[in-house]
Amino acid sequence: VSEGSCGTRAVPGPVPCRRRCPLPCRCPAGAAFDSGTGEPVPRAELLSGVAGTRAFCCCLLSDTGIDREVLPAGACGPALPRVVLVPGHAVANPGSRTQSGSGGSVGYTRRCLTDATAELSVALLLSACRRLPEAAEQPEWMCGYGLSDSTVGIIGLGRIGQAVARRLKPFGVRKFLYTGSGPKPQNAAEFGAEFVPLTRLAEESDFVVVTCALTPATQGMCNKDFFGRMKKTSVFVNTSRYWQCSGAVVNQQDLYDALAQGRIARRLGRDHAEPLPPDPLLSLKNCVILPHIGSATYATRSAMAVLAATNLLAGLRGEPMPHELKL
Amino acid sequence: VSEGSCGTRAVPGPVPCRRRCPLPCRCPAGAAFDSGTGEPVPRAELLSGVAGTRAFCCCLLSDTGIDREVLPAGACGPALPRVVLVPGHAVANPGSRTQSGSGGSVGYTRRCLTDATAELSVALLLSACRRLPEAAEQPEWMCGYGLSDSTVGIIGLGRIGQAVARRLKPFGVRKFLYTGSGPKPQNAAEFGAEFVPLTRLAEESDFVVVTCALTPATQGMCNKDFFGRMKKTSVFVNTSRYWQCSGAVVNQQDLYDALAQGRIARRLGRDHAEPLPPDPLLSLKNCVILPHIGSATYATRSAMAVLAATNLLAGLRGEPMPHELKL
Repeated sequence: VSEGSCGTRAVPGPVPCRRRCPLPCRCPAGAAFDSGTGEPVPRAELLSGVAGTRAFCCCLLSDTGIDREVLPAGACGPALPRVVLVPGHAVANPGSRTQSGSGGSVGYTRRCLTDATAELSVALLLSACRRLPEAAEQPEWMCGYGLSDSTVGIIGLGRIGQAVARRLKPFGVRKFLYTGSGPKPQNAAEFGAEFVPLTRLAEESDFVVVTCALTPATQGMCNKDFFGRMKKTSVFVNTSRYWQCSGAVVNQQDLYDALAQGRIARRLGRDHAEPLPPDPLLSLKNCVILPHIGSATYATRSAMAVLAATNLLAGLRGEPMPHELKL
Repeated sequence: VSEGSCGTRAVPGPVPCRRRCPLPCRCPAGAAFDSGTGEPVPRAELLSGVAGTRAFCCCLLSDTGIDREVLPAGACGPALPRVVLVPGHAVANPGSRTQSGSGGSVGYTRRCLTDATAELSVALLLSACRRLPEAAEQPEWMCGYGLSDSTVGIIGLGRIGQAVARRLKPFGVRKFLYTGSGPKPQNAAEFGAEFVPLTRLAEESDFVVVTCALTPATQGMCNKDFFGRMKKTSVFVNTSRYWQCSGAVVNQQDLYDALAQGRIARRLGRDHAEPLPPDPLLSLKNCVILPHIGSATYATRSAMAVLAATNLLAGLRGEPMPHELKL
């Protein structure tokens, strides 16, 4: 697929996509995607396009509507693997979206999003703490809170959490705290980060960054009690997943209520990239909300496309995918 | 002066200020500032307040109107030093604003603004390259340019330039270039930065950050030729001074014209903190403009207040100021 065109239909045959992709990207020769304008493919066309095909590519925008009708269990099996590609650094509730049990292989794109996502987390943190949106309207005597000599608490010191900490360190952070399912000394060593209970992290941090996965253990973890323990001047940055259908790490109502006390920022991860859905948080001046653009750099999206195509080709050949999702 | 109040009139007597300062700040005991609402002090009141006083504090917002009538040369001398405080990390054309020759001492606040200013420069860079203002309006398929594997060119690798480079390095910057009046190996070593001519910096950088002082040599340095050499995808960040009265490092018209070709961001340093003045750049979606909030963190403004007061007390005692401006 040449740059500026995702439209070449080539071997191994056309691959239906959930959305038409207008972005320039480079893929290994042989992979094929439908071209288009970025609009979702209408359902009737999607069903028609899927019929009899061997592979299907879900969109990075976490489309809904990929159900048993689109991926019927009986339509694929070991002899005719259905390859499902789910670009994204993490997949929440994949079963509910890809209907596990369809007998096919599911690939996804991970790791290549770490840098772009961490970068955006820092951008969001700085926008919130230095109050950039407010400054344009009312700069006079407005002050924010800088990172110098601060304590930063990270919920989930995994790949993205470490990448965020690495970028924040030279801003003069005095102390890193982290919490999670257990201590991760190897991850923490670079930052001298201290493993603490969630309550202590809330109480001592000037900045809280949420980068953990959404699991039953983390669901609703940042709630009224958590926000109530935070300093009134602290900045809260949420870059974890938010699924309208299946919950979030952050209790949305408690977050809204807490904003009356502190300066809190979050990124709203969304199921769709259409204009932001109605949300009372959007009415608050001390809340910076971004759409789901964590991976939105040309380099990252291109890397995701290449990885998706590599997964696809491996799946079609019956080989293990470089990044296969174990359902 | 206690926190939450800048209003105590104490020894060594009231010190007229150009603006009434509503911010909480801590100053060494004995210093005194007028309290108020943040409004500029009316000229008649200013002239009345200055009469017979021994010290005067200009505002950090770079007020105009400090002229020979306010600071008459005859009103001060070695026996009765007039102490003028000019908060700010750099003073452009101080003579035109403080009317050198008045015979007094002029102190200013430097160094304590480095971290906050560098932090804001990075915030501006990330807002521009990841297109945060645009993302809120049109997130679908929008992509920006990240710092991973990029070349960053810094014009003026002084204190702030180094602080910016230090913060950008862990974002995955591949190469740092810099230019200025001459190589600064000691400043460059930490980043492995290469000294290059301005033209090469323009041609090779994915990000250009301007952190140099405004001098006759740098005036209008970033002009049509400079922008014409830049890659069309590059991000331009200007955190240097912009004085409406005396020029700027960046040619404003050429910058406007160049925006049709690239994604360019700048911070507009202004003489006033009132709402942004009419500027054609404000109409451009690919231009992120912030008011003059480089030092606007509580910690930094407090440090500036303390330093201004320390300068003031030293000046009134006839001692050398910790940070005295040599006119």
